Amino acid sequence: MKEPSIPTGLITFTSDFGWGWGYVAACEGTMLRIHPQVRICHLSHDVPGGDVAAGALVLRRIAPLYPPAVHLAVVDPGVGTARRPLVLLTERTDALVGPDNGLLVSAAEAMGGIREVWVLSPAQVREAAGLPSDQISMTFHGRDVFAPAAALLAKGVEVAALGSRVEPADLVSLGSPYALVEDHSVTAEVIEVDRFGNVALAVRFAELSPLEHFYQVEALGEGLPVWTARTVTTFAELGSGELGLFCDSWGQVALALKSASAAQLLSLERGMRVRLTPLPQE
Amino acid sequence: MKEPSIPTGLITFTSDFGWGWGYVAACEGTMLRIHPQVRICHLSHDVPGGDVAAGALVLRRIAPLYPPAVHLAVVDPGVGTARRPLVLLTERTDALVGPDNGLLVSAAEAMGGIREVWVLSPAQVREAAGLPSDQISMTFHGRDVFAPAAALLAKGVEVAALGSRVEPADLVSLGSPYALVEDHSVTAEVIEVDRFGNVALAVRFAELSPLEHFYQVEALGEGLPVWTARTVTTFAELGSGELGLFCDSWGQVALALKSASAAQLLSLERGMRVRLTPLPQE
Amino acid sequence: MKEPSIPTGLITFTSDFGWGWGYVAACEGTMLRIHPQVRICHLSHDVPGGDVAAGALVLRRIAPLYPPAVHLAVVDPGVGTARRPLVLLTERTDALVGPDNGLLVSAAEAMGGIREVWVLSPAQVREAAGLPSDQISMTFHGRDVFAPAAALLAKGVEVAALGSRVEPADLVSLGSPYALVEDHSVTAEVIEVDRFGNVALAVRFAELSPLEHFYQVEALGEGLPVWTARTVTTFAELGSGELGLFCDSWGQVALALKSASAAQLLSLERGMRVRLTPLPQE
Repeated sequence: MKEPSIPTGLITFTSDFGWGWGYVAACEGTMLRIHPQVRICHLSHDVPGGDVAAGALVLRRIAPLYPPAVHLAVVDPGVGTARRPLVLLTERTDALVGPDNGLLVSAAEAMGGIREVWVLSPAQVREAAGLPSDQISMTFHGRDVFAPAAALLAKGVEVAALGSRVEPADLVSLGSPYALVEDHSVTAEVIEVDRFGNVALAVRFAELSPLEHFYQVEALGEGLPVWTARTVTTFAELGSGELGLFCDSWGQVALALKSASAAQLLSLERGMRVRLTPLPQE
Repeated sequence: MKEPSIPTGLITFTSDFGWGWGYVAACEGTMLRIHPQVRICHLSHDVPGGDVAAGALVLRRIAPLYPPAVHLAVVDPGVGTARRPLVLLTERTDALVGPDNGLLVSAAEAMGGIREVWVLSPAQVREAAGLPSDQISMTFHGRDVFAPAAALLAKGVEVAALGSRVEPADLVSLGSPYALVEDHSVTAEVIEVDRFGNVALAVRFAELSPLEHFYQVEALGEGLPVWTARTVTTFAELGSGELGLFCDSWGQVALALKSASAAQLLSLERGMRVRLTPLPQE
Repeated sequence: MKEPSIPTGLITFTSDFGWGWGYVAACEGTMLRIHPQVRICHLSHDVPGGDVAAGALVLRRIAPLYPPAVHLAVVDPGVGTARRPLVLLTERTDALVGPDNGLLVSAAEAMGGIREVWVLSPAQVREAAGLPSDQISMTFHGRDVFAPAAALLAKGVEVAALGSRVEPADLVSLGSPYALVEDHSVTAEVIEVDRFGNVALAVRFAELSPLEHFYQVEALGEGLPVWTARTVTTFAELGSGELGLFCDSWGQVALALKSASAAQLLSLERGMRVRLTPLPQE
C-alpha cells in the first residue's frame, strides 16, 4: 500500500535568526535553488534567541493553521553537536524538519500525531541537493542541512532518500511549563510576553473554576510586585491603569493593561512564575 | 447590471501584531487554508501598537501603490466590543477589510473613494469559511473573522454572502492630525518618526510659502528644545549636526539630521507638536 | 549574437528601510503594479541605517545563494545627489539594481563577475513603467526609480531601454574592512554583530595559522576590555561565561559567548577593531 505522501509546494519556516543579517534569506535562497517554484511562508524569525520551548510554542500554535506542508523550524543551540537532524511525518501528512531538541514534537502532536520519525543524513541531503557534501558549517545547519532537506521534501523527494527511519520513543522532548492548580490558588509559568506587554500563563482559562471577578496577582520572586486583577473578556473593558485577567486567543489565562505593558507593571519575563488567588466578591 | 467585482488573487495585510509570536502567520495560515493560491503581501506589521491613526496613515500611503486587491488591515484596540467588522469597496475595485474605527476610510478615499460599505456577520464569515461559528476569540478577530473574510473575498465569494450593506454615513472616522498654518508660523503634529529618526509633520511642504531658507523649530512642551533648521532638498546637503527641513517622499514637511536622529535631538514623538517660524535671510 | 538575457520572474530586495512605516511595501507595490506576477524575496530590510558596507556584505553573502535574479538593493545615503543609479549585469546573468556607492560591486563579483554596467535614466525608467516622469522625490529613489527599474528588467524589458552603458572602471567601490595579519597577532575590524551578540571579524579563520587553543582578545580603544578566548568548533562546547573563538558559517573568525552577547562583554560594535594574540598552550 502506498504511504500518504508529503504535500509539495508549501514550506513554512520558523527560526530565531532575526532578519537583520540575511540568515533567513540564506535558507530561503538555498531552498529556491533546489525548488524554484516552492512557496515559503515565514511564521516567525523573532523567536527569543536559543529558546527552544518558545519556538515549539509558536510552531505548535501556528503550523496547524496552515494547510499540510513541510514545516522547517530551526532554533538550534546544539548546532554542530551530536543532536540529530530530524524529519517528523504527521498523521495530517505534514513533514516537520529541524533539530532533535524538542522543537518539533508538540507541533506534530497538534497535527494529528507523529506517523514516522526519520533521522537525516547530512551527506545524503547535500548529495540529493547537488551541494558539496564536505562543506557543512559547524554553526549554520539551517542553511546547510535543514533548508536543503525541506526543499527536497517539498519537491517530492522521498524521505527514505535522505536518511533512516528510527523509533519515536527516542525523541528528545521538552518538559511542560510549570503549572499548579490548587484549591485556593493557581501558580503558573509565564509562557509568552507579547508585543503589547500582555502576559500569557501556562494554564488554561477554563481551569480557573469557579471563576471569580477579582484575583490577587503575585509575581513570584524577591521584591516583586503584588497586584489586583479583574476578570474581563475584552481589553476595552479595562480602565486606565487597571490590570485585567482574561482568556487569550489560545485559551490561556493572560494578564493585560490598557494601552500599557502588564509585563512591565509586574516585572515579568518569560519563564517566571505568577500566583493567582481569587479575592472574595466585593 | 453586473457590479464590478473584487479582484481575486492578491491580499495585502497591515497590522500592529509584530512578527515575534506568530500572530501574523496565524492570519496568513488561516487565509491559505481557505484560498491556497492567494498571494499575500505584508505592508507592515510594526504599526505602533493600538495606534489606529498610524495604521490608517500606512494604509492610505501604501495600499494605493499596489494593484487593486483585498486589503486586510487590523489595528483594533476595540476588539471584542460592539465596533463593527467592515468591508469597504472602493471605486478602484479594492476591498478593505477591518474594524470600523477609522483605520480604512482614508485609504478608501485614496483609492477612488468608497463605493459600498458592508458590515460583516462573523457567523456568516465563519460558516462560509468552513470554520466553527461558535469559536470566535474575544481578542483576536484578525485570525477569527477578518482574515477568513479577506480570503473568501479574494477567492471570489460575494460580499453579500458575508454580511449586510449599510450607509457610508455611519462610518467611524478619525480626526485629522493637528495643523495650523498662520501668517508667520506653521504649527503641526508629528505624524511619523521613521527608522532614521526623521520627523514628518502634518503639513504639506507646498504650504510653506514663501519658502524661507531658515526656520526656527520649536518642539511644543515644557522644557523642550528650540533649534534652527535649514531647508534642503536632500539629506546629503546637510553638514554634521545640522538640522534640515525638507519635502519628504509623500510631500510632507519633514525634519532630518545627517546620520543621526532628529527626533532625539528635538525630543519628539508621534503626536507631539512642532512650530516652524521662518527666520530672516542672512 | 544574442546576449544572455536577465532572468525574469524573481526579484530579491535588500534595504535599510525597516518594515515599520511601509517603505518596503511602497517599493513592492510599485513593482507589482508593473509586473503583477513577479516573485519578490526579501533578503533583509534591517541593514544598519545608511551603512552601505553592511548592505554590501549582506548582498554579497546572500544573493549568490538564490537562483539568478534581479537583485534590488537600496542603502542610499546619497539619494537625491549626483550619485548614479546603476544596473550591473553579472556573468551568472543576474542584474543588480541600486545606487553607485559600492553597494553592488562585491555581490556582482561573487556572482561570476561584472559583465556590463549601465547607468539608469530615471526619466526613461519612469516612462517605460507608465509613471509620471516629473514626479520623482528627492529622498525615496527606491520607490521612484530603483523598484520600477527592477520590475521592468524582471518583466523582460531590455536594459538598453532604461539607460546607457558605461565602463566598469568608473564604479564607486568600498575599501575592504581593516585586517592585518602579523607574525604574532591578527588585528581586524568587526564586520558583523548578529542577533545573538556574536562578533565576526574581517579575517578568514583559515588565516589563523598555526591555530592555537587560546587567544588573548583585545577590543582596541581606551578603557576597553581584554579577555581570553578558547578556540571551539560549536557553541555547545562553551562553558557558561566562556568566550569562544570559532569559524563562522561564512568562514570568518568570530567570537561568541554561550547564551550571552560577546559584543556586550567586549563593548564591541561594527567598525571597531579587535587584536587576537595566541597564548602559549597550557
